[in-house]
Amino acid sequence: MSILCVGSVALDSVETPFGKAERVVGGSAVYFTAAASLLTSVQVVGVVGEDYPLERLDFLRARGVDLSGVEQVTGPSFFWSGRYRYDLNARDTLDTQLGVFADFQPRIPDAFRETPSLFLGNIDPVLQADVLDQVSAPSIVACDTMNYWIEGSRDALLALLARVRILIVNDEEIRQLADEPNLLKAARWVQERGPEYVVVKKGEHGAILFAPDWLFFVPGYPLEEVFDPTGAGDAFAGGFVGYLDHAGSLEPHDLRLAMVYGSALGSYAVERFSVERLATLDAADVRRRVAEFRDLTAFETRVEAV
Amino acid sequence: MSILCVGSVALDSVETPFGKAERVVGGSAVYFTAAASLLTSVQVVGVVGEDYPLERLDFLRARGVDLSGVEQVTGPSFFWSGRYRYDLNARDTLDTQLGVFADFQPRIPDAFRETPSLFLGNIDPVLQADVLDQVSAPSIVACDTMNYWIEGSRDALLALLARVRILIVNDEEIRQLADEPNLLKAARWVQERGPEYVVVKKGEHGAILFAPDWLFFVPGYPLEEVFDPTGAGDAFAGGFVGYLDHAGSLEPHDLRLAMVYGSALGSYAVERFSVERLATLDAADVRRRVAEFRDLTAFETRVEAV
Repeated sequence: MSILCVGSVALDSVETPFGKAERVVGGSAVYFTAAASLLTSVQVVGVVGEDYPLERLDFLRARGVDLSGVEQVTGPSFFWSGRYRYDLNARDTLDTQLGVFADFQPRIPDAFRETPSLFLGNIDPVLQADVLDQVSAPSIVACDTMNYWIEGSRDALLALLARVRILIVNDEEIRQLADEPNLLKAARWVQERGPEYVVVKKGEHGAILFAPDWLFFVPGYPLEEVFDPTGAGDAFAGGFVGYLDHAGSLEPHDLRLAMVYGSALGSYAVERFSVERLATLDAADVRRRVAEFRDLTAFETRVEAV
Repeated sequence: MSILCVGSVALDSVETPFGKAERVVGGSAVYFTAAASLLTSVQVVGVVGEDYPLERLDFLRARGVDLSGVEQVTGPSFFWSGRYRYDLNARDTLDTQLGVFADFQPRIPDAFRETPSLFLGNIDPVLQADVLDQVSAPSIVACDTMNYWIEGSRDALLALLARVRILIVNDEEIRQLADEPNLLKAARWVQERGPEYVVVKKGEHGAILFAPDWLFFVPGYPLEEVFDPTGAGDAFAGGFVGYLDHAGSLEPHDLRLAMVYGSALGSYAVERFSVERLATLDAADVRRRVAEFRDLTAFETRVEAV
């Protein structure tokens, strides 16, 4: 099968306790695709400015990613700059310049409209809905969002959720969206508004999948060095949706395994700046880390147990 | 087999967003034993004042716990009072009165000296070492500690660690002990100083077991209501050491399952004030929650997977 991914294609300047990276490729669509392309075919729709180093996405083309929907227009690319503090769980945004992204109106090429899977990266929910209007009926529709839209475009976001099968957000976002600190209750609140499945990412603390009548938890992979957390959530989404599209199924065993692929790709993403680590991975690396997650979490109950 | 548990036997006054409990039974030895006694035999050594409502520990006696090592002396019992804020992850200590606990000198009855397993609850590391001197060679020696001893009795604590097989602490404590924010590195630092196994409890975010050459992670059980977090870490320790003593083994499959028993008992502990919930449990309840952990975390890798 294949995934259509619509989202930001950005340049990031990032400072962490371990170093600095200036104007490196980033954005939700880039991180998502760098992960998902290890598992399935991906088509990307986005916009960049004339300053964008498109050749740095050649590793995606080499994996068969269709970037023909990434339009290059006059003006500067979306630029984000941030600094991570010592514990890497908190970050300060130093600068955000929307550039050509401010006028982004996703146009889905005819060749992409029959996509079996759709990932709506974190953009204006009005635009996310507009993308949904342009495609026929994908069997998997997953979307992300952020505090900016939860606060400022709540009605549009709620209208979108009614049309989405999977919501992928972090713990802060779902608490804010549902106005409820308890994650179980917050997830149920969201499920009542549309999405059958809710994935809550908790950074280094792992992620939970809320299905209609069951839960699945995957930990964050314990790493000695988290080099740059930027994009980990988008890489998680890429691994998750990428595996589901590859499997062509939302059966419970596939959803569970998809969570592990998500956490595996998220854990690789933070090992280097930008998509440097994701760019050098192959399927065997991903399989190896998935097996490591099994070693990390599997246990046997025993007949002689208490 | 059986466990000798030495620790605090206290009265707690606790306020949470859900209510108040005044002078209810608590303390590390009580929570530990309320959990471990569901899985194996337990003998307790501690001290209480003349104000202690020992009859509230009758549920432990009914499970066969030997409380003959809990001395009742003249003076007030150890008293702790605290308040949890809305998110339940932070708490304010309102009052601590050591009472008779200030002069606690653990005397291990002859009948307990051959114990196969020993749990050293969070008390002065000098006293923990003194307990070790009084017993013959237990095959399992586990201990807890806290920031107060890490700061104020560092040398005594490090001397103790060299004699302990399992250290059970929370994430803040191990970071402080090793002066290292990364948990993997902090655990290795501790392992180089004695304990073969290090268990790091992360509250609602689960717990990690660091063995010499492998790791195991168990999540916190997702609960709709966390009523009172007091004692969850001690109940975890009780489930963990309790299962190991029951199994009579530190084989990897038993250590993994012990982590799940720990998280199961910790999750039950927070459902009511004090040991109210732990007091009403039976082995079937514990088995059921362990099975729920399996549903929460198990996944199958598939041959056709990417």
